[in-house]
Amino acid sequence: MRSADLIELWRGGRRESIHRGHAVICDRSGVLEAWGAPSRVIFPRSSCKMIQALPLIESGAADAAGLTDRQLALACASHDGARMHVEAVGDWLDGIGMAEPDLRCGCHMPRDREENRRLTCSDGAPSQLHNNCSGKHAGFLTLNRHLRGGPEYIEPDHPVQQAVKAAFEEVTDEVSPGFGIDGCSAPNWACTLEGLGRAMAAFADPGQDRRGQAMRRLVDAMRAHPEMVAGEGAASTVLMRATQGQAAAKEGAEAVFVAILPERGIGVALKVVDGASRASEAAITALLVHLGVLDADDPAVDRHLPKSIRNWRGMDTGDMRTSTGFPA
Amino acid sequence: MRSADLIELWRGGRRESIHRGHAVICDRSGVLEAWGAPSRVIFPRSSCKMIQALPLIESGAADAAGLTDRQLALACASHDGARMHVEAVGDWLDGIGMAEPDLRCGCHMPRDREENRRLTCSDGAPSQLHNNCSGKHAGFLTLNRHLRGGPEYIEPDHPVQQAVKAAFEEVTDEVSPGFGIDGCSAPNWACTLEGLGRAMAAFADPGQDRRGQAMRRLVDAMRAHPEMVAGEGAASTVLMRATQGQAAAKEGAEAVFVAILPERGIGVALKVVDGASRASEAAITALLVHLGVLDADDPAVDRHLPKSIRNWRGMDTGDMRTSTGFPA
Repeated sequence: MRSADLIELWRGGRRESIHRGHAVICDRSGVLEAWGAPSRVIFPRSSCKMIQALPLIESGAADAAGLTDRQLALACASHDGARMHVEAVGDWLDGIGMAEPDLRCGCHMPRDREENRRLTCSDGAPSQLHNNCSGKHAGFLTLNRHLRGGPEYIEPDHPVQQAVKAAFEEVTDEVSPGFGIDGCSAPNWACTLEGLGRAMAAFADPGQDRRGQAMRRLVDAMRAHPEMVAGEGAASTVLMRATQGQAAAKEGAEAVFVAILPERGIGVALKVVDGASRASEAAITALLVHLGVLDADDPAVDRHLPKSIRNWRGMDTGDMRTSTGFPA
Repeated sequence: MRSADLIELWRGGRRESIHRGHAVICDRSGVLEAWGAPSRVIFPRSSCKMIQALPLIESGAADAAGLTDRQLALACASHDGARMHVEAVGDWLDGIGMAEPDLRCGCHMPRDREENRRLTCSDGAPSQLHNNCSGKHAGFLTLNRHLRGGPEYIEPDHPVQQAVKAAFEEVTDEVSPGFGIDGCSAPNWACTLEGLGRAMAAFADPGQDRRGQAMRRLVDAMRAHPEMVAGEGAASTVLMRATQGQAAAKEGAEAVFVAILPERGIGVALKVVDGASRASEAAITALLVHLGVLDADDPAVDRHLPKSIRNWRGMDTGDMRTSTGFPA
C-alpha cells in the first residue's frame, strides 16, 4: 500500500504542492478508518512522549517526587522554551536535587519569540532547560533517581530507557523493530502507524488498572495545561484549546501528529511522508473536524488549513486544502 | 507519469522521510535526462528571475540606467536582506530617481542573521528593501521608467508584466496556462518543468542575437556576484561558489531549483512536490555532482546532502541521501 494524498497548496487556480502520508483513527478494537498504509513503520518522535512518561508514574517515581499535573504535562511536552517552561523545568530539577548539567538533551535556541529575542539581544546562550524536550528529560531524571540508575539515562540499555521500551511495546502491542537517536539524544522506538494509533486509543479509553490510571492522569494533565505541552501559538496548544479539552494533541518531528479523544474513546495518529509540519498540522486539524471535536469555523482551523494565504502586501495568493478522499 | 523518489532522510537504519519530485536535464535539442514527469505544470516562482530580467536588458532600459553586473545579479536574486543587499537596492532606486515607496513587493524580516538581529534588537521594522525580491522589483521599476508605464507595475496586464510574459513564453517555448500571484505580488507564469529546463538550456547555450546577448550577460552577472543572488550561507550562493562558476544556480519557493551550465550548454530544472527547500537543495546538489561540475567531496555537498546529521549534543542521528535511481 502506498501513501495517500493528504494536504495540498493551491495558487492561481492550480495545485502547486502536495503532501502525502498515512493516517489512522483507532478505538480499543482496532482501526476504524485509515488513509495510506497503516502498517508503515515510523519513528513517532515526540508524539509518543505520553508513552515515554508512563514508567514515571507507574514506577511510583512521580508520586515519590510529588509531581503536579503541570509537571506531568511538561513531561509530555515539546515546549517552546518560554520563560514559564524554562523556570518550571528548573524548579522541577531543583525539587529533586538535580540541576541543568544533569540533563542530556543538549541546548538549542527557544522557539518562543520573547525568550529567543531576550537571548539574541543579550548575547545569551540557551541552556538545556530551553531544549523543547527538557520536561521529558526532567521526567527521565525523576524516574532515574527512583530506579537508582547511572547518570547516562539516555543510553538505550539504561534502566530508564528499557522501562520506556517495555511500556512502548505494550501499548503499541508490537515488538519494536529498533530505535533511532532522537534530536534530544534519547532512543526513539519505531512502531507501525497503526500501533501508534492503537496506543492513542488505549490512552483515550484506559482500563481501571495501574496503567489505565497512569494514562488517564497524563491525558488529563495535558488537557488541563495545554500551554505547557507546546506553547502560545503552537499547533498542539492551539488545537487542544480549540477542542475545549475534547482532544489531547501532540506533534512529533518529521510530521507526526497524534490525538487522544477520551470522550469518544478514539485515538488518532498520522505521519506525512516528507516530514513537513505545515502538513501534519493541517492534517490533524482536518481529522479533528472530521471527528466532530473541532468546529469547522473555529479560527484554529483557518490558522492551520487557511482558506486564504496572504502575501506580504496582504494579497490573496491561494489556499491550503485537504485532498479528495481525505478525510472524507 | 508520477513523481519520482528523489531525497530521503534516514535515522536508526530506517528511512524516516522521503521527498518526491520531478527533474530534467536539457540542452538546446531537448530533454537529455528526466526523473518523474517533465510535463508537469509548475510555478517556477523565483527560479525564473533571470527570465523576468530579460526585458530589462532587451528593452535597452538597463543600459539607459547604466546598470552594473552587480545590479543585474541583484535583479535575478532572492537575497537575504543583508546590509549589502539593502544598500545596493536603495542606491539603485536612488540612481533612477525613485525610492522605497515605489516598490510593490511588501516588507518581511530579512533572513540574514546580522540584519535580522539588528532589526529585532532595535525594535526596527523591515522595509521593502529587505524583501528578498527587492532587486527584481528594482529591475521592474527600471524597465517601467523606460516604458513610461503606470506605478502599479505588478499588475498582470501592466506593460512590464506583459513584457515578462512574452519573454517567458518565448524562452520556455510554451503558451503559459496562467499565472499565480507570487509572495512579492508580481504574477508568476506557469510552465511545464520541461519548458523551464529548456529555458535554462537556452541561457546555457545562447545565440548571438539580442536575446542571446541578454542571456549571457545575466548568467555572467550571476556567476560573478553569487553573494548578490542569495547571500552568505544560502544554497544558490554556496553552490555557485562550489562549482567555481561552472553553474549559475537559482532557487524558487516551494522547492523549485534551476541551474545553468554554460560550459556544458546544459540547463537543469527540478520541483520537489511537497515544497521542501531542504529537498530541492539536496536534489540540485546531487544533479550538479552527477553532471560533473561539483566535486562529490566538496563541503557544499555535505552541507546540503549530509552524510551525518548531528543532534544538539553532536550525536550522529542519521543521514540524508538520494533515492535509488536518482540521479543515477
